[in-house]
Amino acid sequence: MSHSLATHPDRLLPADPGTRSIARSLLGRVQDLPIISPHGHVDAAVIEQNTPFPDPAALLVTPDHYVTRLIHASGVPLEKLQPQAGARSIWRSFCAAWPLFDGTASGYWLRTQFESVFGWQGELSAETADASFDAISTKLAEPGFRPRELFKDFNIEVLATTDDPLDSLDSHAALAADPSFHGRVLPTFRPDAYINIAHPAWAANVDRLIAEASDGGTGYRGYLTALENRRRYFVDHGAVSADHGVRTPATLKLDQAEAEALFDKARAGLATALDRDAFEAHMMYQMARMSVEDGLVMTIHPGSFRNHHQPTFEAFGADTGHDIPFAVNYTEAVRPLLQDFGTAKDFHLVLFTLDETVFSRELAPLAGFYPSVYIGAPWWFLDAPDAMLRFRSAVTETAGFSRSSGFIDDTRAFCSIPARHDASRRIEASFLARLVAEHRISEDRAHELIVDVVDSSPRRVFKL
Amino acid sequence: MSHSLATHPDRLLPADPGTRSIARSLLGRVQDLPIISPHGHVDAAVIEQNTPFPDPAALLVTPDHYVTRLIHASGVPLEKLQPQAGARSIWRSFCAAWPLFDGTASGYWLRTQFESVFGWQGELSAETADASFDAISTKLAEPGFRPRELFKDFNIEVLATTDDPLDSLDSHAALAADPSFHGRVLPTFRPDAYINIAHPAWAANVDRLIAEASDGGTGYRGYLTALENRRRYFVDHGAVSADHGVRTPATLKLDQAEAEALFDKARAGLATALDRDAFEAHMMYQMARMSVEDGLVMTIHPGSFRNHHQPTFEAFGADTGHDIPFAVNYTEAVRPLLQDFGTAKDFHLVLFTLDETVFSRELAPLAGFYPSVYIGAPWWFLDAPDAMLRFRSAVTETAGFSRSSGFIDDTRAFCSIPARHDASRRIEASFLARLVAEHRISEDRAHELIVDVVDSSPRRVFKL
Amino acid sequence: MSHSLATHPDRLLPADPGTRSIARSLLGRVQDLPIISPHGHVDAAVIEQNTPFPDPAALLVTPDHYVTRLIHASGVPLEKLQPQAGARSIWRSFCAAWPLFDGTASGYWLRTQFESVFGWQGELSAETADASFDAISTKLAEPGFRPRELFKDFNIEVLATTDDPLDSLDSHAALAADPSFHGRVLPTFRPDAYINIAHPAWAANVDRLIAEASDGGTGYRGYLTALENRRRYFVDHGAVSADHGVRTPATLKLDQAEAEALFDKARAGLATALDRDAFEAHMMYQMARMSVEDGLVMTIHPGSFRNHHQPTFEAFGADTGHDIPFAVNYTEAVRPLLQDFGTAKDFHLVLFTLDETVFSRELAPLAGFYPSVYIGAPWWFLDAPDAMLRFRSAVTETAGFSRSSGFIDDTRAFCSIPARHDASRRIEASFLARLVAEHRISEDRAHELIVDVVDSSPRRVFKL
Repeated sequence: MSHSLATHPDRLLPADPGTRSIARSLLGRVQDLPIISPHGHVDAAVIEQNTPFPDPAALLVTPDHYVTRLIHASGVPLEKLQPQAGARSIWRSFCAAWPLFDGTASGYWLRTQFESVFGWQGELSAETADASFDAISTKLAEPGFRPRELFKDFNIEVLATTDDPLDSLDSHAALAADPSFHGRVLPTFRPDAYINIAHPAWAANVDRLIAEASDGGTGYRGYLTALENRRRYFVDHGAVSADHGVRTPATLKLDQAEAEALFDKARAGLATALDRDAFEAHMMYQMARMSVEDGLVMTIHPGSFRNHHQPTFEAFGADTGHDIPFAVNYTEAVRPLLQDFGTAKDFHLVLFTLDETVFSRELAPLAGFYPSVYIGAPWWFLDAPDAMLRFRSAVTETAGFSRSSGFIDDTRAFCSIPARHDASRRIEASFLARLVAEHRISEDRAHELIVDVVDSSPRRVFKL
Repeated sequence: MSHSLATHPDRLLPADPGTRSIARSLLGRVQDLPIISPHGHVDAAVIEQNTPFPDPAALLVTPDHYVTRLIHASGVPLEKLQPQAGARSIWRSFCAAWPLFDGTASGYWLRTQFESVFGWQGELSAETADASFDAISTKLAEPGFRPRELFKDFNIEVLATTDDPLDSLDSHAALAADPSFHGRVLPTFRPDAYINIAHPAWAANVDRLIAEASDGGTGYRGYLTALENRRRYFVDHGAVSADHGVRTPATLKLDQAEAEALFDKARAGLATALDRDAFEAHMMYQMARMSVEDGLVMTIHPGSFRNHHQPTFEAFGADTGHDIPFAVNYTEAVRPLLQDFGTAKDFHLVLFTLDETVFSRELAPLAGFYPSVYIGAPWWFLDAPDAMLRFRSAVTETAGFSRSSGFIDDTRAFCSIPARHDASRRIEASFLARLVAEHRISEDRAHELIVDVVDSSPRRVFKL
Repeated sequence: MSHSLATHPDRLLPADPGTRSIARSLLGRVQDLPIISPHGHVDAAVIEQNTPFPDPAALLVTPDHYVTRLIHASGVPLEKLQPQAGARSIWRSFCAAWPLFDGTASGYWLRTQFESVFGWQGELSAETADASFDAISTKLAEPGFRPRELFKDFNIEVLATTDDPLDSLDSHAALAADPSFHGRVLPTFRPDAYINIAHPAWAANVDRLIAEASDGGTGYRGYLTALENRRRYFVDHGAVSADHGVRTPATLKLDQAEAEALFDKARAGLATALDRDAFEAHMMYQMARMSVEDGLVMTIHPGSFRNHHQPTFEAFGADTGHDIPFAVNYTEAVRPLLQDFGTAKDFHLVLFTLDETVFSRELAPLAGFYPSVYIGAPWWFLDAPDAMLRFRSAVTETAGFSRSSGFIDDTRAFCSIPARHDASRRIEASFLARLVAEHRISEDRAHELIVDVVDSSPRRVFKL
């Protein structure tokens, strides 16, 4: 092959020559549009301080649980992928495992980064581990590979981070105030650890929250006031959304007295599992109420069994590759919330899923009626080429193109952002090209739609 | 493009040229066959009285909750789509929202109607709203656009309606007796509002039913007798099926005393939610028993959460676009019924679903064993091109082509019937063409199969 | 068409010419590799004794519930497909029903057998029933159609059977000791009838098990010892895996006293349905513990409602075509087992499903983290061309190619084995060819991967 996989102009496009030709033309329409990333996990401080990335392993392997999980599955203990194992040793483990990534989304993004960001043209293997480590390390030491320079090279216009409600947001403020930085780095309000009573730090978090932000209020009322105040603080610092990583999509409207009683019981350490579920569900209702008031887009990410393997959690902590999805049901779960806020003015509620079955069965029908509801882009294990095509096929015939969120990269791997958005654009072009080839939409209209899906949708849905 | 989308001969056919060519040939085999519509919601009186359709909005927008729901999702209040908003104003709202329908099944059907039925060649838009309204209005005033003339033009051979058990069926009788009308318009027995205790009119309906049709019987026994009598009345008026819009597919065999006790409790207004579920499940068993006796094909449509948004229901009533599907399980649910009637002679039970996951997991295995069970065609949100292809792929490898119902349009939008059946035939041709191209069936056999699927299946399954 | 369907070199390959050409080349790489069949239901005695197959009906129809079920669905009573109906009569029923199998996996396998194994070139039909019966009967009488000769012709290297824990394994021993037989026929430990308290023979089985193999131990401890001893006996006779056909994938760790109490309660005939579920779940935990100790690969096949139609079960027994799948959830169910054994050295756990939704949602994420977990190949109703493609699409983007089991034919239909493996190889080639055509993997790499998937995976996963 004359082209490498990573730079082939037709990568991810459909094989049928006629459809591919349409897809190429559609892709051309959006390939150079700026990146809008309304939800992800990059650390704002890294951009503000423009800290050089330390080494290839710390940049590309250790923090990415998509990557470490598959190496672990092949029999490499997680110890060998921890920072203390040493960057070069980790990189060797990764390179030896590289063939496992064929056909995976992570493999696709990594391959693209190696070549497009770091200029590494060779294959990765145990044999080339040291050479590739050195080559990428050399690049990382160059001034052009600092976060702010990459931010510009990557053509990122908006990058949302995910932040603790009590975060000072100093980095965000500094970036906003810096005339030399032209991107927008926006905080996102993520109160899980203040809402989920099962979180080990819940009680301490709530104490701090009330102490710092309740305007002197106490108990449940003080708690709500403090959440409202911190949301306002986020809004003042440019936040456009509040994100909720909940176990299930359940929502529940409790009256003031019931909610207060649950809250007090939980602070006394007496909440049962059912109490915790009820309180979390009720707080989703409250978060929607606050979103209606302060305008923050509400996003919900349910359905992952966190820290599935207890021994791994105890040894290595959370986010180490063993969060496993399970079946969810949205239709009954979000009804209490939608009864009161489903048609509220300017309320935006973006529903994500790791359970593909709800796309056609529940999310497209919900978003095809409620003005507030948007279908979250395929997330986590599903933001991959085939899965994204299945998503479009599952939702479009019911909800059209106007009711989905636009691509969400949801990543902490900063250098993968362009590869992820590029892959998404190729898949949108592929899907639309098929509809054109099947005479379901006109080619002219497809050219409008791809711009809408790639660029206008995230701006509209996330109020950017 | 030289062809409009609506009339392109290859619309919906697969892009691969070789496969498309096979599909074209298969489509040619069935394109002119008459329409068999064994389940739908057209009003027989409209055909009997041959009432002119009033205006484009009343014909194409207000009664079609597929259409109003997506306009509503875009932020247009339902008030603006109600008849009292005025036909031209509704039409303008619809035209402004028209781009939202790209890629949807409704959009496909509407576009086909505009051009093929009403001869409107232009695009629809806010700018052309008045022109298109006037053009279609003019057509509707022409004698050739009366229901009976369209019935003939559409090449409809059989059209089943959906009717209240106490309906006089006068329109059906009049049409059957009219030597100038050559179609068959058949009633369908739909007793939901007499079976579902949660229905607001259940008690009153049951009173009326017993008063009018129980041959003097009272209580539960009178109730069963009355249902049997009214089914017989429907059979005598040409009905071939009884349809059941239930919450879940649960079935249950209660003994006479238990059923009687539940019935009496419900009439006393004391039934709990569990009682209602048990009674409905038991009545599905009874309906199967009656179908075995009187030969009516039994069809079940479960799994929709009706009237999801209470405020909309209160303001605008049922069938206003916020019925949302949820997960169903058939395997255990229909077992009580199938224990006793699964192999009963000439019993036909057609199982529909809004939850695609049961196609390969449950419905194809059930229909591939039980002689009574047929897989209902993709329904409601699923009667769309991609969803219909997924359906065929999901069921055929287990159940072949002989165990599904044939296409069901299930529509109240009379003028969409040809577009819907045409789309279905194109998808059947596409699916079969792929099997031919992959050397899984011969082209000769595919020509037989497409006739079987389009024409023979609905006749056989619905005893037409 | 110049080629018959059964021998067309491009059968099952994708229609797009460019992709097909890649697929052809990939298929060529594996088409002549030996068959590895690590799980199935052929009787070892048939091979050991080299008994001639009696007649076409006994070979191809009566024992194959894939086949009889669809004939039954068409209205033929099962009596007519029982041996006592007579071979020729059964064959006539089958031939008359043959058109029902178009598009099914069974139809594909049968067609291939008729032509490739028995040299029957014509179509099957009521008219040709006697001719085909006679032609195949003639072949079956030839020495070359004895089981051992076919074993060699089919190029089978390894064939695993499924065996009762108390089976003597004499046939396996005889085959292993026979210098004239060059294949490997391996037993598989299948203890369902000794673990599932609901099994009608459970109590008697447990009595026999303890009497024969507990080294004098009694009660629950004796039971565990006896299971361990019999597993060891299987290992000594070449077994590589233990298979578990459970209702659900639930696992549970009980302490010794709890387990003992349940066991005693069950032997006293007092176990409730909940007790039975708990005991089965606990025994899955114990089976995993034993697998960690003795090295047998653990395979789990859950999610089938066995003997769905009670009257058919009473008349014809189990495995008569009315086992119907239902929804399963693996994420929470296997957690207790994986807590303790998920990262155990050399433990292999292969998880199968009849519910496709768990492939992307649960199995790929689990197998992409736990070194012990492998994704079972599409099973039963899902080992069909489209379903196998859906499987690869669902799991590969998360788990790559290294985490699945390789093809499992799971068949009792000996003569269908080559057709099934051939179909699987064609689908693997089709899937990989698409990834090459979409520039997601290189063609060179695809050539390695198809060998890995077809040949190395089953050897590695099943420790062959």
